[in-house]
Amino acid sequence: MSLIRSTKRKKSASNKIGLPPGSLVYVGKDSNEPTQIELIQYDENESVKTEIQKVKELKSFITDKKVNWVNIDGIHNIDVVESIGKIFNIHPLVLEDILNTDQRPKFDIYEDYFFVSLKVVTKSDSDANVYNVEQISFILGNQYLLSFQEKSGDIFGPVRERLELPISRIRHSREDYLLYALIDLIVDNYLSVIENVGEKIQFLEARISDNPKEKHLKKIMIHKKNLLDLRRIITPLKESLFKMQGYETSFIDPKNEIFFRDVHDHINTIQELIEIYFEINKSLRELYMSNISMKTNEVMKLLTIISTLFIPLTFIVGVYGMNFTNIPELDNPNGYFYVWGVMIVITLILIYYFKRKKWI
Amino acid sequence: MSLIRSTKRKKSASNKIGLPPGSLVYVGKDSNEPTQIELIQYDENESVKTEIQKVKELKSFITDKKVNWVNIDGIHNIDVVESIGKIFNIHPLVLEDILNTDQRPKFDIYEDYFFVSLKVVTKSDSDANVYNVEQISFILGNQYLLSFQEKSGDIFGPVRERLELPISRIRHSREDYLLYALIDLIVDNYLSVIENVGEKIQFLEARISDNPKEKHLKKIMIHKKNLLDLRRIITPLKESLFKMQGYETSFIDPKNEIFFRDVHDHINTIQELIEIYFEINKSLRELYMSNISMKTNEVMKLLTIISTLFIPLTFIVGVYGMNFTNIPELDNPNGYFYVWGVMIVITLILIYYFKRKKWI
Amino acid sequence: MSLIRSTKRKKSASNKIGLPPGSLVYVGKDSNEPTQIELIQYDENESVKTEIQKVKELKSFITDKKVNWVNIDGIHNIDVVESIGKIFNIHPLVLEDILNTDQRPKFDIYEDYFFVSLKVVTKSDSDANVYNVEQISFILGNQYLLSFQEKSGDIFGPVRERLELPISRIRHSREDYLLYALIDLIVDNYLSVIENVGEKIQFLEARISDNPKEKHLKKIMIHKKNLLDLRRIITPLKESLFKMQGYETSFIDPKNEIFFRDVHDHINTIQELIEIYFEINKSLRELYMSNISMKTNEVMKLLTIISTLFIPLTFIVGVYGMNFTNIPELDNPNGYFYVWGVMIVITLILIYYFKRKKWI
Amino acid sequence: MSLIRSTKRKKSASNKIGLPPGSLVYVGKDSNEPTQIELIQYDENESVKTEIQKVKELKSFITDKKVNWVNIDGIHNIDVVESIGKIFNIHPLVLEDILNTDQRPKFDIYEDYFFVSLKVVTKSDSDANVYNVEQISFILGNQYLLSFQEKSGDIFGPVRERLELPISRIRHSREDYLLYALIDLIVDNYLSVIENVGEKIQFLEARISDNPKEKHLKKIMIHKKNLLDLRRIITPLKESLFKMQGYETSFIDPKNEIFFRDVHDHINTIQELIEIYFEINKSLRELYMSNISMKTNEVMKLLTIISTLFIPLTFIVGVYGMNFTNIPELDNPNGYFYVWGVMIVITLILIYYFKRKKWI
Amino acid sequence: MSLIRSTKRKKSASNKIGLPPGSLVYVGKDSNEPTQIELIQYDENESVKTEIQKVKELKSFITDKKVNWVNIDGIHNIDVVESIGKIFNIHPLVLEDILNTDQRPKFDIYEDYFFVSLKVVTKSDSDANVYNVEQISFILGNQYLLSFQEKSGDIFGPVRERLELPISRIRHSREDYLLYALIDLIVDNYLSVIENVGEKIQFLEARISDNPKEKHLKKIMIHKKNLLDLRRIITPLKESLFKMQGYETSFIDPKNEIFFRDVHDHINTIQELIEIYFEINKSLRELYMSNISMKTNEVMKLLTIISTLFIPLTFIVGVYGMNFTNIPELDNPNGYFYVWGVMIVITLILIYYFKRKKWI
Repeated sequence: MSLIRSTKRKKSASNKIGLPPGSLVYVGKDSNEPTQIELIQYDENESVKTEIQKVKELKSFITDKKVNWVNIDGIHNIDVVESIGKIFNIHPLVLEDILNTDQRPKFDIYEDYFFVSLKVVTKSDSDANVYNVEQISFILGNQYLLSFQEKSGDIFGPVRERLELPISRIRHSREDYLLYALIDLIVDNYLSVIENVGEKIQFLEARISDNPKEKHLKKIMIHKKNLLDLRRIITPLKESLFKMQGYETSFIDPKNEIFFRDVHDHINTIQELIEIYFEINKSLRELYMSNISMKTNEVMKLLTIISTLFIPLTFIVGVYGMNFTNIPELDNPNGYFYVWGVMIVITLILIYYFKRKKWI
Repeated sequence: MSLIRSTKRKKSASNKIGLPPGSLVYVGKDSNEPTQIELIQYDENESVKTEIQKVKELKSFITDKKVNWVNIDGIHNIDVVESIGKIFNIHPLVLEDILNTDQRPKFDIYEDYFFVSLKVVTKSDSDANVYNVEQISFILGNQYLLSFQEKSGDIFGPVRERLELPISRIRHSREDYLLYALIDLIVDNYLSVIENVGEKIQFLEARISDNPKEKHLKKIMIHKKNLLDLRRIITPLKESLFKMQGYETSFIDPKNEIFFRDVHDHINTIQELIEIYFEINKSLRELYMSNISMKTNEVMKLLTIISTLFIPLTFIVGVYGMNFTNIPELDNPNGYFYVWGVMIVITLILIYYFKRKKWI
Repeated sequence: MSLIRSTKRKKSASNKIGLPPGSLVYVGKDSNEPTQIELIQYDENESVKTEIQKVKELKSFITDKKVNWVNIDGIHNIDVVESIGKIFNIHPLVLEDILNTDQRPKFDIYEDYFFVSLKVVTKSDSDANVYNVEQISFILGNQYLLSFQEKSGDIFGPVRERLELPISRIRHSREDYLLYALIDLIVDNYLSVIENVGEKIQFLEARISDNPKEKHLKKIMIHKKNLLDLRRIITPLKESLFKMQGYETSFIDPKNEIFFRDVHDHINTIQELIEIYFEINKSLRELYMSNISMKTNEVMKLLTIISTLFIPLTFIVGVYGMNFTNIPELDNPNGYFYVWGVMIVITLILIYYFKRKKWI
Repeated sequence: MSLIRSTKRKKSASNKIGLPPGSLVYVGKDSNEPTQIELIQYDENESVKTEIQKVKELKSFITDKKVNWVNIDGIHNIDVVESIGKIFNIHPLVLEDILNTDQRPKFDIYEDYFFVSLKVVTKSDSDANVYNVEQISFILGNQYLLSFQEKSGDIFGPVRERLELPISRIRHSREDYLLYALIDLIVDNYLSVIENVGEKIQFLEARISDNPKEKHLKKIMIHKKNLLDLRRIITPLKESLFKMQGYETSFIDPKNEIFFRDVHDHINTIQELIEIYFEINKSLRELYMSNISMKTNEVMKLLTIISTLFIPLTFIVGVYGMNFTNIPELDNPNGYFYVWGVMIVITLILIYYFKRKKWI
Repeated sequence: MSLIRSTKRKKSASNKIGLPPGSLVYVGKDSNEPTQIELIQYDENESVKTEIQKVKELKSFITDKKVNWVNIDGIHNIDVVESIGKIFNIHPLVLEDILNTDQRPKFDIYEDYFFVSLKVVTKSDSDANVYNVEQISFILGNQYLLSFQEKSGDIFGPVRERLELPISRIRHSREDYLLYALIDLIVDNYLSVIENVGEKIQFLEARISDNPKEKHLKKIMIHKKNLLDLRRIITPLKESLFKMQGYETSFIDPKNEIFFRDVHDHINTIQELIEIYFEINKSLRELYMSNISMKTNEVMKLLTIISTLFIPLTFIVGVYGMNFTNIPELDNPNGYFYVWGVMIVITLILIYYFKRKKWI
């Protein structure tokens, strides 16, 4: 099978119509940064980091005696990904999935390795976005773990630090535990992002109670969208982890399975949180709607009170503004004061009526 | 079993009541275009296209040595479909399904072949419709692939182009891979159409935020209907692909099963997109409704402000428009100015009140 | 077990409380029409119809050499049903189910026969009802098919016509295919009725868009009720057909199973249509509600425009209607025209304001 | 295990916190009526009823030769229940379930017997409640059927009457058929109560259409609550019957299983009815809400028509009520009539406008 | 594996990002109270309570001959938890779960023991919270039961009291029955808390019917949140109990399994109650919304009545306030009274109209 080395990078999955399956097309944003390939090798005694310059040399570095972690930073360079694919004998469809950053999280098992693709979400500093999404793919073979990162940046920092510590469990384990440690890190990030969404929802509630504005409704919609997206990211990951436990593969040491089960558990917690935030977000919308109704009601009450008080009075004064030649009351010297008396009485009755209705 | 050669083409499935099962009735639009039968035969060395004039000759063209793809363009010609059915020994119910373009996407396995029927959706240029739907049926036998297209038009173009390239994988594979390539193409089209719907929904959101109109609500309803229809098209296809993987048939080479699994995966992505667009579309309706409430509220506020400001003042001026003989204030030379003073004070108080209520 | 020959026919299932199970009670409408028993016997050579006068003679007519179809028209005559039950050795609970027209569609397998009970829906001409419902029960034994119709009337007409044609498949098959043909006919009727409901919903949409009235909301509710009822009729039928395929019975020839699978498929289509019409009907209600809100909003706008324009002007003219002895403006010979000028300016400003708000 | 003979009868399940499991506590209403124990023994030849005075004697009455039905009326007497538990060797948890009338319907199988607990609902005469709920528990052993009723009263009357008839099937069967007959009776009661709820919902619809009042909304809520409760009563019963069919017990004769399947079927019908009434009840609420909106709209229209007609006219007459020394129109002898003319024209234009808007 | 003895106590799960899995971090509130370790040992003859001062001594106390219950009060002391973990050879992930009070209820089975973590809810006295939540974890080994309580306080009091009674079943059973008794106690607490929520919802209904206020809507939202949280606590517990029954472990005596089944049953009841309260709470929101609409409607009616009555009258008196030189009616000596007559007639007509509309 020949891989088409597409130089034009297409921006949307829909542009892929008609390309043969397995065509390597990077659908994310272009980037000028060079792709970095980093090989981390460790065992109980030492941990060594090597910057790989030429992809072809990679093979010669791999050794049975240590854990081999190859981290590829920046997948916009299709040639590099393809070369690595050739070195490790990876199926073209897998390479396509690695490059397709619109890819749904998935897990697939092959003869020589298995493939996990998932999304990393990280808290965003900007106000518009609550989080950034990045795709990371892992290929776990018998002697190596490959990780493909969409953007450079060091989300794996904490694991790297632990790799420095000779006493850490990670140094006494093989690639499967390393994979677990990386996935666990990613899942912890989910929790942090979702808690962030939760706080924003809580903050919004106070604002809506105070004075509901159209922009609040927009924010509610954005939260909903974010939660939908997060759910869409997490649900297939759960399936993947479930499948991983099901397969009896030679890639995961049975005594490490408990760790993957633990991650599975964390994802359950996250899913439940998402569902609860969904419900709370929905309640916010109801709060918003009912507050608007409430305010309309208040406005109406004021209008009604004013109208009910003054319209009859205006009528009365209108009566004595008429120019009939014979209006007996007009000639009564105290007529003016009597009229005031009548109007004050009417006003008092109406005020009493409103009080009883609890309108004022 | 005798096939009734119906010359009247019925327009609605409900007109089929009482016809014996397996009756061949074309339920789509009539067409005067002749049905085109095209035989594409290829192997690693060459790819030959033959226009078949007489259906009966078709049999003699089929050869074991090459991949045989028979593409029938335009199924309104029942005789042709029936003849092909006889040549390849196809069950009458299958032929009925091919002709019934109201048919739900389905997959059925028979002794000599299996049958897949699905819908192609293509982006529409017209403003009213977002997409066109066409039914395509495939029959995959051991030496042949039949494809039945409802309308002529070349949705299979990209695959044909690849058939021209000797290095393409498709040229080195058999009918099963060809079928996969065609289905993959169709599924890519779904994605493109759904992204199109998504963009329209996004565009609508901006319009509704600005100024909600009744026609927007209609558009929301149309989007909902479209998404419902797309879901109805895609869900059974997913089932079919799932069934296809389950059966151990001699029609699909086990090493090609991964490709069908990949299509299955794409459909999952599409389904999730549909669900998300459903939710966003639903949010749009809520936005619409709440914007109308919001506007009613605003209108009410203006009315109330104006009324509350002027109704009391009008009452006051009414008082001094009365014609009582004895109204002491009227004789006060500065009475007129005092009244203005009182009215200005009342107005200022009310404006302050409205400001505090954040109405103005 | 003794069958109670109830002469009083009870109208509601709730009146059956306390009757022993298996009590034969007809719960439908009374009828004076006599019950007709018709025996249709056919094979490849001939098709003979016999009107059975005395139930007891029925047994003697049944023959191994032909397909025996006994159609009982009108089940209000409990004695007849009971006699037939005795002749064919049918379980009293089955007879109870045949008579109970409130019965949920069901399928039950017994040693000597199996029992299918379902509902026929037919388009109604009356305006109030969209369709009529009738219960039909089938008992398929090894040498016979019994069909029990609630009302006389010929819904099986099309099948009868085909029975006249020596070349039709039905004439070359046994009772199982006959049963299939009848069920297929019934399912085609469902489709026709549901399309009818769909058209009425579409028609209603136009009316609501134009001018929503309370009666439209009632119609929406009726459509919902109808769709609920249709769903309730169809869902258990689907289960029944599913069960039928599951059982390996001697009653259905394996090579005819594909036909039952085909009916199953049609029911899937119908179910999906029902769900879609549900959704569209729901959208109608939303359209209705939002149109009313829209209209309220419009009414409010008009009121506000009129009030905002005239209330301040009325105040102004009220000012110069006051009778103070000293109002300097009144003595100005052009005062009246100045006031008009001021009022026109105010009016123009307000109209500009409304235009900018897109209210007029 | 020691059973605590609690003399204080606790009213709420929550008061049980801290009591050891298996503590016999009656949670229903207190009652002074004595508990009645009735032993009904029958076979094909005779049916004998014995009033048991002392619980301990019960054992001596039980005989292999007849069907033994022990009906305990009134479970507030804990000592009696406990004694019976000892005689028939019943697990303390089962006794706890019998006494706990807040118990969810359940089915449990033990070595020597099985236990079914369910709710009887009976139509209520009072206006506030639509039905009464009572808990009934059955214990079916090899030679006996125990039934525990919460309240005295004869809901089993119809079965008793049939027990008097030597020809009834029940007299020719054993305890399992008796149990079936009793459960069937209870299920028939469900249907009757649900039809009653359905009628009340239908009646309410007419009232809401006419003039929606707040009390109607309350009624809708009560119906919803009732349907929720009925669903909660029926769903676990269905599960129980399903489990009953699954177990191959020596307690139920295989040839009677069809009867239990029949009850299962009735419950399906009831469940579907409940779901449909839920939906209709929900529609009622929507009808209610939209009728209120409709009425608000109508009120608004009237207000707007009146205001739009008279506010401009009032302005005009205000103009000519001004006291400017120089208002030329005032001196025109026909000025008054011209003004009337203008006002009538304005009124006619507005009426035409309203007519076109279909407001009047 | 080295356990990090973190002295800084982190408050949020999201702060755990980057810590190696199995890191012991207490995420709850800090506390200065010392951790209490209490060993309760009992058999049929005696029950002894020992306060453990040094964790290391614990091992020496454990004996085969008695039931050993170790209750750890206060898990904020990580050192203590870690030491116990070492003594009983507990997996670090389990210890992490014990300390992580944000942990979802779970059940995990290990070689030497199984682990159950659940939430205790207790009625709260404060007005803001309806209940308090505390996490309790159990480890059931072959000779011991460990229980870890988050806060000190004696929620296990009732079980302790029963431990004092030599005749209680608990004294004649082993650790598995003790575990059951404790879980049963916790589940009884759930019921009590949920009934409390139910009562508050019922109380709220009366308030909303009377006079809906914004704070009521807030309360509805809080109830919803509480029910969501309770559901989130209970659902995984049900799963755990289900799994417990499934495993054939040596930790639970088969004859005690019925007790766990009984707890499972109680949880079903609780779940159904939660769902019903959800629905009722939802109804409350609908009641709230419709009451506001109702009130708006009422206010509108009053406004409309007043306006419709007086605006036309005000116009009439305005007419005769005009200063035209020639208004014939003005000179009519009874004109004034005629006008009053006309106005009274108009008023009566309008009042009749409102009465017919049932507005007054």
